[in-house]
Amino acid sequence: MNAIDYREEVSAQDAQAVRRLAEESGMFNSDEADIAAELVDERLAKGLASGYRFLFAEEAGTVQGYTAYGHTPCTRSSFDLYWIIVDSRLKGRGLGTKLMAETEKRVRDLGGTRIYVETSSREEYEPTRGFYVHCGYRLEAVLQDFYAPGDSLHIYVKELT
Amino acid sequence: MNAIDYREEVSAQDAQAVRRLAEESGMFNSDEADIAAELVDERLAKGLASGYRFLFAEEAGTVQGYTAYGHTPCTRSSFDLYWIIVDSRLKGRGLGTKLMAETEKRVRDLGGTRIYVETSSREEYEPTRGFYVHCGYRLEAVLQDFYAPGDSLHIYVKELT
Repeated sequence: MNAIDYREEVSAQDAQAVRRLAEESGMFNSDEADIAAELVDERLAKGLASGYRFLFAEEAGTVQGYTAYGHTPCTRSSFDLYWIIVDSRLKGRGLGTKLMAETEKRVRDLGGTRIYVETSSREEYEPTRGFYVHCGYRLEAVLQDFYAPGDSLHIYVKELT
Repeated sequence: MNAIDYREEVSAQDAQAVRRLAEESGMFNSDEADIAAELVDERLAKGLASGYRFLFAEEAGTVQGYTAYGHTPCTRSSFDLYWIIVDSRLKGRGLGTKLMAETEKRVRDLGGTRIYVETSSREEYEPTRGFYVHCGYRLEAVLQDFYAPGDSLHIYVKELT
């Protein structure tokens, strides 16, 4: 693994990189990959007023993972982590954990005191839920059958100290 | 109280009506009134692709209350109620309850099976929380200190049958 560069600036090519990461992960359907890519477009169109911040992790100029996050409207200092995706071929090498820590550092610098992240109760998201717990997030709430019957929403939170 | 007309079409003047209702309610600060009005603008700019639907309750051509709601992205049939505001001078006359029932009817017609609504734990929102319970919503989850220290998020849900 080469050195990882972190980048906050967003460019037009990032929409494609984000779509590729979402599709290759096997965790998202094409509607969800569209939504992930649209977030990049909205950020490009509106700048920080979009409410979306990005952190890209690059190795030798190639995007290997990213997070999308932002201040939660109408809250004093809560942030949402909207997306975290890491190149599926790099899973297990700790890039996700590093990307999360780098994102939390930036949220803290922006005055954020807590980060919320949402995921599904479905079995295929068990590694995702385990990843959040590994990163120090705790399950704060469950919305039963939110996504569909038998598919609940799990809301995790981490208090930044 | 004259006859109430319900209207789903959105016009440019509605942004102003929404802002007036938000400000006069005394429940929302000016940032929140801005956000309420921006939802109208976004709906006008993008149409139904905005994800926002509106229901205006009018008496003799004047907007007395409204709801903003929409299908929750990435869910099969969950809906969010983003806003419900009734002219503060009409409180207690049952317009809120009627507007809620009319909104639920439209959600059901769109195939929705549940509606989520979020509010604050603060004391001044006790009537709001009581109103949701009166309308058949139940408290599904609490996110502690979500808005600010001591100001939690309460998430209510109603299953449509």
